[in-house]
Amino acid sequence: MNQTTTVKLNAPYLIFLGDVNDLMSAKTGAGLVQWCPEKVVGQLRTQPDSVDLGVTDMTIEQAAAAGARSLVIGVALVGGEINQQWTDIINLAAASGLDIVSGLHTSLHDVPGLEETASSSGVRLIDVRRAPEILPVGTGKKRSGNRVLMVGTDCAVGKKYTALALTQSLKDAGIKATFRATGQTGMMIAGEGIPIDSVKSDFISGAAETISPGNDTGHWDVIEGQGSLFNPSYAGVSLGLLHGSQPDAIVVCHDAVRATVSSCPEYELPSINDCIELHLRCARLTNPAAVCIGVSVNTSGLPANKRNPYLDNLSKQTGLVCVDPLVDGCEAFVSSLMALNQV
Amino acid sequence: MNQTTTVKLNAPYLIFLGDVNDLMSAKTGAGLVQWCPEKVVGQLRTQPDSVDLGVTDMTIEQAAAAGARSLVIGVALVGGEINQQWTDIINLAAASGLDIVSGLHTSLHDVPGLEETASSSGVRLIDVRRAPEILPVGTGKKRSGNRVLMVGTDCAVGKKYTALALTQSLKDAGIKATFRATGQTGMMIAGEGIPIDSVKSDFISGAAETISPGNDTGHWDVIEGQGSLFNPSYAGVSLGLLHGSQPDAIVVCHDAVRATVSSCPEYELPSINDCIELHLRCARLTNPAAVCIGVSVNTSGLPANKRNPYLDNLSKQTGLVCVDPLVDGCEAFVSSLMALNQV
Repeated sequence: MNQTTTVKLNAPYLIFLGDVNDLMSAKTGAGLVQWCPEKVVGQLRTQPDSVDLGVTDMTIEQAAAAGARSLVIGVALVGGEINQQWTDIINLAAASGLDIVSGLHTSLHDVPGLEETASSSGVRLIDVRRAPEILPVGTGKKRSGNRVLMVGTDCAVGKKYTALALTQSLKDAGIKATFRATGQTGMMIAGEGIPIDSVKSDFISGAAETISPGNDTGHWDVIEGQGSLFNPSYAGVSLGLLHGSQPDAIVVCHDAVRATVSSCPEYELPSINDCIELHLRCARLTNPAAVCIGVSVNTSGLPANKRNPYLDNLSKQTGLVCVDPLVDGCEAFVSSLMALNQV
Repeated sequence: MNQTTTVKLNAPYLIFLGDVNDLMSAKTGAGLVQWCPEKVVGQLRTQPDSVDLGVTDMTIEQAAAAGARSLVIGVALVGGEINQQWTDIINLAAASGLDIVSGLHTSLHDVPGLEETASSSGVRLIDVRRAPEILPVGTGKKRSGNRVLMVGTDCAVGKKYTALALTQSLKDAGIKATFRATGQTGMMIAGEGIPIDSVKSDFISGAAETISPGNDTGHWDVIEGQGSLFNPSYAGVSLGLLHGSQPDAIVVCHDAVRATVSSCPEYELPSINDCIELHLRCARLTNPAAVCIGVSVNTSGLPANKRNPYLDNLSKQTGLVCVDPLVDGCEAFVSSLMALNQV
């Protein structure tokens, strides 16, 4: 009855962009077009200068006719409240049989009229910031298949990007792989997942076990990480995710020019070696074979001529493959994973 | 407006025991009589053979006349549903101006008629398993005053008991001290606190910071611990609590005859030295001066003649004071804390 499961989204998506006209505010929508174009049927823009993601412009009616199953709010809410125009369009989408999917702070249940519309047309209102009500307590029991988890020196250092790029590189190499989402944008891209930072704290590792279930022997789950064991605000999330993921391998993600913890500016970031060591030590509670296979560095803040020396030096320090996946790709990580003889 | 705070209970309490006739099911009530007798005005029993906690029997009317401000459900719910007799008494208490305080899995909001009764008489329904809706993200900022946190090799190894006994020993020694509750029974005893395992995982360390706010230079907060960094189900809770508590000192709690993790029987417990080392390493992120001042052992499972050799041996292994607080008291821990020169 109350089966524990991830949040599952119905594709294809119509991406709602509204009147938002700066790309930063539309990065959720842009991420969908980049990482899961096969799930995107079109975009809905309400102004001539609204952000254009380069996919087909559609009305709700056109999208419904084209088979869209969800309206995904692909923008951040600039300036607070959902306005009347948005309310009307979202209600029309629900009335036309589309699930509504949102990562906004404002709950869809607070959009005027939307609960009634959704109820009468039988569609779902999915706030991807909300965790499922029913989740299991973590068991620590070993599962089949292989897992690689992104960890990091801080929040927002490229864990989602690295996981997505690594999943693609594994697939390109002919290896079965699935991106596993633990945050809202990742969930929209994957079409399922659990926003692990919204789970009640007793259930963090149980949620992580649910996100990455048992799988085939040769299959890799590539799990989006959250936070850092060195982040005083969020380390509990990171530890529960680490234990529940039971990773065979971790990739440490880092921003080359980040010096202090984003949420706690008086805290210095750990060294990469300290970060690897503590994450592995904790990971080995639930998977004694866990190893670190590389470091993923966002080098966009470095001058171009400092990029390679930085990565070379880090590689010497750690004895590991160190790459910027946006520049160098993730093939080197794939080789490291294959060298584990588990692929 | 939405001020973040702990859950606060109004004393004195009338303890509701209903028809429960075994002491194990009444251990919440028994804990209140043991640890905060000054908060207990009486007990309400519905059968001659109901558990007797040795305090004055009272009806709702008598308790209200005696100044009771809360009816505290002091028993576990044996066999599921709240029955009609309980429902009537709880409604009468609410109608008589008493807050209703419960740690049952069944929410007070699901007791027939109770929401209406509470609303019309202006009393509160407090499910102590529920965390406050609004909590801050942890900041990692150092607070004034001193803190000692109970940690452990597992759940249910005596952390609450040790914290309560240590608080009492500190007070007996003339040192200002406050027990800080992180679980439901502790909250009833303290009259406030946050059930940290119910907090959304992003806010664990923020909740811990809220539980133990800044205080006088010579004051000690004695913080109830939860779980263990070595428990695959709950370690995330333990790490967030450790970071947010910023303990100057930790006490490791252990059950002498526990060999495997309670929620994950295939996992062996860590050694005491490993447990100390990892907890200190993580604690030092937010308080670089953190030390371990002793080990609290529940020796009730050992034969009497094995108790002292066990503690002596553990003391040699760890170089620390090792006591069973139920047998030996906590004076030795007080001495260790005073030796830190922070008292």
